[in-house]
Amino acid sequence: MIVEMRRGTTKEEIDGVVQRAKSLGLGVQLNVGTDKAVVAILGSNTGQLSTDIFAVLSGVESVIRIMKPYKLASREFKAEDSLVSINGIEIGGKRIVVMAGPCAVESEEQLMEAAKVVKGAGASVLRGGAFKPRTSPFSFQGLKKAGLELLARVREEFGMPVVTEVVDSHDVNLISKHADILQVGSRNMQNFALLTNIGKSKCPVVLKRGFSCTITEWLSAADYLLAEGNNKVILCERGIRTFADSTRFSLDISSIPVIKRFSHLPIIVDPSHAAGHYSLVPAIAKGAVAAGADGLLIEVHPNPKEALVDGPQSLTPSDFTRLMEELRSIAKSVGRYI
Amino acid sequence: MIVEMRRGTTKEEIDGVVQRAKSLGLGVQLNVGTDKAVVAILGSNTGQLSTDIFAVLSGVESVIRIMKPYKLASREFKAEDSLVSINGIEIGGKRIVVMAGPCAVESEEQLMEAAKVVKGAGASVLRGGAFKPRTSPFSFQGLKKAGLELLARVREEFGMPVVTEVVDSHDVNLISKHADILQVGSRNMQNFALLTNIGKSKCPVVLKRGFSCTITEWLSAADYLLAEGNNKVILCERGIRTFADSTRFSLDISSIPVIKRFSHLPIIVDPSHAAGHYSLVPAIAKGAVAAGADGLLIEVHPNPKEALVDGPQSLTPSDFTRLMEELRSIAKSVGRYI
Amino acid sequence: MIVEMRRGTTKEEIDGVVQRAKSLGLGVQLNVGTDKAVVAILGSNTGQLSTDIFAVLSGVESVIRIMKPYKLASREFKAEDSLVSINGIEIGGKRIVVMAGPCAVESEEQLMEAAKVVKGAGASVLRGGAFKPRTSPFSFQGLKKAGLELLARVREEFGMPVVTEVVDSHDVNLISKHADILQVGSRNMQNFALLTNIGKSKCPVVLKRGFSCTITEWLSAADYLLAEGNNKVILCERGIRTFADSTRFSLDISSIPVIKRFSHLPIIVDPSHAAGHYSLVPAIAKGAVAAGADGLLIEVHPNPKEALVDGPQSLTPSDFTRLMEELRSIAKSVGRYI
Amino acid sequence: MIVEMRRGTTKEEIDGVVQRAKSLGLGVQLNVGTDKAVVAILGSNTGQLSTDIFAVLSGVESVIRIMKPYKLASREFKAEDSLVSINGIEIGGKRIVVMAGPCAVESEEQLMEAAKVVKGAGASVLRGGAFKPRTSPFSFQGLKKAGLELLARVREEFGMPVVTEVVDSHDVNLISKHADILQVGSRNMQNFALLTNIGKSKCPVVLKRGFSCTITEWLSAADYLLAEGNNKVILCERGIRTFADSTRFSLDISSIPVIKRFSHLPIIVDPSHAAGHYSLVPAIAKGAVAAGADGLLIEVHPNPKEALVDGPQSLTPSDFTRLMEELRSIAKSVGRYI
Repeated sequence: MIVEMRRGTTKEEIDGVVQRAKSLGLGVQLNVGTDKAVVAILGSNTGQLSTDIFAVLSGVESVIRIMKPYKLASREFKAEDSLVSINGIEIGGKRIVVMAGPCAVESEEQLMEAAKVVKGAGASVLRGGAFKPRTSPFSFQGLKKAGLELLARVREEFGMPVVTEVVDSHDVNLISKHADILQVGSRNMQNFALLTNIGKSKCPVVLKRGFSCTITEWLSAADYLLAEGNNKVILCERGIRTFADSTRFSLDISSIPVIKRFSHLPIIVDPSHAAGHYSLVPAIAKGAVAAGADGLLIEVHPNPKEALVDGPQSLTPSDFTRLMEELRSIAKSVGRYI
Repeated sequence: MIVEMRRGTTKEEIDGVVQRAKSLGLGVQLNVGTDKAVVAILGSNTGQLSTDIFAVLSGVESVIRIMKPYKLASREFKAEDSLVSINGIEIGGKRIVVMAGPCAVESEEQLMEAAKVVKGAGASVLRGGAFKPRTSPFSFQGLKKAGLELLARVREEFGMPVVTEVVDSHDVNLISKHADILQVGSRNMQNFALLTNIGKSKCPVVLKRGFSCTITEWLSAADYLLAEGNNKVILCERGIRTFADSTRFSLDISSIPVIKRFSHLPIIVDPSHAAGHYSLVPAIAKGAVAAGADGLLIEVHPNPKEALVDGPQSLTPSDFTRLMEELRSIAKSVGRYI
Repeated sequence: MIVEMRRGTTKEEIDGVVQRAKSLGLGVQLNVGTDKAVVAILGSNTGQLSTDIFAVLSGVESVIRIMKPYKLASREFKAEDSLVSINGIEIGGKRIVVMAGPCAVESEEQLMEAAKVVKGAGASVLRGGAFKPRTSPFSFQGLKKAGLELLARVREEFGMPVVTEVVDSHDVNLISKHADILQVGSRNMQNFALLTNIGKSKCPVVLKRGFSCTITEWLSAADYLLAEGNNKVILCERGIRTFADSTRFSLDISSIPVIKRFSHLPIIVDPSHAAGHYSLVPAIAKGAVAAGADGLLIEVHPNPKEALVDGPQSLTPSDFTRLMEELRSIAKSVGRYI
Repeated sequence: MIVEMRRGTTKEEIDGVVQRAKSLGLGVQLNVGTDKAVVAILGSNTGQLSTDIFAVLSGVESVIRIMKPYKLASREFKAEDSLVSINGIEIGGKRIVVMAGPCAVESEEQLMEAAKVVKGAGASVLRGGAFKPRTSPFSFQGLKKAGLELLARVREEFGMPVVTEVVDSHDVNLISKHADILQVGSRNMQNFALLTNIGKSKCPVVLKRGFSCTITEWLSAADYLLAEGNNKVILCERGIRTFADSTRFSLDISSIPVIKRFSHLPIIVDPSHAAGHYSLVPAIAKGAVAAGADGLLIEVHPNPKEALVDGPQSLTPSDFTRLMEELRSIAKSVGRYI
């Protein structure tokens, strides 16, 4: 249930609602905005309670049931768009935030070169994987701790925030020390132990859509993060698994307006993993910005042919620079900038 | 096999290749451009022939095997983009062509009103279904012949070309008398008897992608049209069937750059059938234009709430007018216009 | 709406219901069983009518609305299982009916040999395609009329009913003269012009499931046949298109109990097209019989390596003979026989 | 690469191969059977090595490259079927092993009642979830540790092995103390940190197929377990996500023969999660046994209407007892028993 308080409600009235909920053994999450406050009442048995229990309390404007399984990620709980701020870069506002870099951190030289290129072309955040979840145990699994240290060094050198993937719930602390944004990969979107730990860390997080998960499941996964009090959640559409065989995954462009309709969270798009081939990345990236994405996550490698992971889908520095020019023009046409 | 002739080849040399092919019982299709000529050698047993048979002939530059099942729709057969011209409107060029109107023709009043609105907002072609292929035999099947006559009357009145669906291979002649462009619906993409008859008619045709067909199957279906000598083929992406349940179908935005890479045919996008809900149509339409679509096919109804078919996905006149403004801005940002 | 008449209702009372429906512009379909009669009231606007209109009529037991789009194929319209009888072979009863033979008719020798093998092993019906709907126009399209004549000759010789595919709505008459059962292929499941013509022919028909159609769409397609008064409809599950890449299609085994629950029509299974590889056919065929299928449609070729179409998925004569033995054992374990 | 040793090879010769591999920085896994030995050479760069490096060594019969990403789960590495033995119950042999019980452990009374019923009907293993991975954080998450203790108590009382799910890589030790078989759920099939820890535990494990994972990805996930030396791996097909909407998931019956062809691991089937409705469970279960499954994992609840989780898909005790009778008959018809 979502309890909407009257404008000008007092702290005591809000407390009254919270106490009533707690007395019934229910959880509570607050969204106190500048002109009104909303209380989400959480708990699996909410369905059996009457809304009257809260409607009669002082200061309550209305009480609505949410039939969707997700609550905290919903527009009902928070009507205005959420902005996630990372070192002064705001995601979810007028600016389209581009995160770019190699799939995997391979060496200091590679990462420095990549950072130079993507920063020069206008990207705001550097991406790079230190822990790589690979389909086979016999594939390259990333540089791990050494990779994290390289990321931290490059972040220092270039003054760029860094995003990197976390694959084990017990690595959250370690990785959040070296990176500014944690990334939950598609295969871990429903790894609830991992989500809970990242929720507790309060670290900004990019939550990639599971490649076969519905939008309801995705927003419910976001609820695992939000329920722990971490509201720095950025959604990332990266393509879904379908019968189509011309691309690695099918980018679900419609997820952008669907998310904007049902959720307050910002959404970025990863065209590289969806496409699986560099030649298709620019068109998808441009489509995503025009459709309303708040940012992009793009693979760029100084030398794609020698990449240890995902070379075929990485842009070269010059391709990326050209794409950024085109994206600026499209961003402007929809009233935004990069 | 694709036989590429030398620049400045003579008609006799081309004939030599054609005769050699015919003597082997093979079919032939010619693409004679301004500076070079290409001969496609067709026939199920091509795989067993040596390329030398043609390579030794006079005037032949090179002979390549095409392993893809489609030949005539491929870039190998025709490197430059195809333009389809309808009453002076060119599809596949700098102009983004918008086809708009109601899903089904319901009455003269409805169709006139729709035509007025869409023309006023800048659409170039009027869409409207007279024969409706419905999932259940007990649903409204369209006004049929009466609907065609209404389309012809409105076309006259507004000087706008008209596109309408054909569902039975034996209606091709009738419909091509009343309409400027035939539409093959998603459920008929592999109705090869229908494709063959439309191919013979030489009438411009919008070939919608089967909602579960791969791009290879789609281009092979185009080959059925092209093989009969009809090269006025416009592809239309309209969403594929996936597990995703927030939209009626999942628009495969990547199909735009994939088609541009492998085929010379123009591609337009139908955001209405993919979305299934009007609120999602604008974002998808904008994404499609930025990603490189050559046009759009959009459902607009003077009064969506009273539509007999597909009301929930139809735009109102004012929504459509606003969308056209936004599309103009995006078209400009990618070097095109509406 | 479904109007159920009282036991012992008179012809006049049934007529009363029929006349009332017609006076409202609605269609009607009757199911008069030995102990009770049911009238289906058909028409797109049924939803706006009150059930009282019929409930008050003489002889009416109950009136129920069917929210599903399909009516005539539903259990509500006909509670008991339908049996389809072909030359004394009953499909939908205790006997599991096996239809087997080559994908395409290639020559008299091939067809005679195949018929001998499949009859010898216990199959009841010979399958063989004369008109082949192929993805590419440059692939072998079948022997067409010559193939039909071969089928008719073999049918004569072996006294076996024959099933063959029809791909053009205007070939229905021709083909029904040469074959005992018409087959609607997966790509034509929603070719409504074809379905309507087959419905009118009253010829027994195998309706394959569209490879991306839901069960609701499948039963609605069956309604196109039933609405024309053809109740000799046999459904055939042949695999759906999914992301899975180890088989050509994914056989939807659950469709068997789902169909048995919601429809009275018999259902057979085609393991060959689903599997795409002969080595997987026996396991799927056995699973289908145990799960309740009323029959099987299996590709058998005297010499699969030389087959013009679908060789990799065809069983050899000896594989087929062995499979039939195993199937007999499973049929017995579920109280049926072959 | 797979190095197959000659019959009668010596320990020294095997060591020679192992040492050569290690000297190149490669991993190694041994399969020493009664009449021959096989060495798998592991490492991401294997592709660049010549097979000659091993072919010339003493005692080597042949060296083959495996192009598939999975190695240890493949038939090439181990030709004969693997048997997994749990307290004397062998999975993968002639006996069809049925694991049954409630989705979630709810109370001692419920679990005792369920155990009595399923044991009485002939099930060999009791299933029950203590840790439940739920889509929403606000749904019932299981009794956790208290649930484990109940499982351990019931196992004691009935002398039945117990299978239960593990969702956090750091709970492996705890859970393996209370249960005989660990279960990796569909959402965690690619949680590689979890797989690695279970691999190290050497505890028998049921690895459910990710609902959108290919068979190649599934066997690669098994390789994560096998690579740690845990060869008590049981695969479980539980349905894949498709467009079909009559069932919760589409059971991929073909995965049974595909796994039997490409892998030596036993495979069981969970018809309950695939179906999503109890009425469909028996048909799918029977189909699975006829198609070659080595066992079943079935949800049974003493009182499905009051189940906290997955009530609609749980069988009642009497339904389960009836199904077991039918399964015995089918098992016998394919030369097996329950």
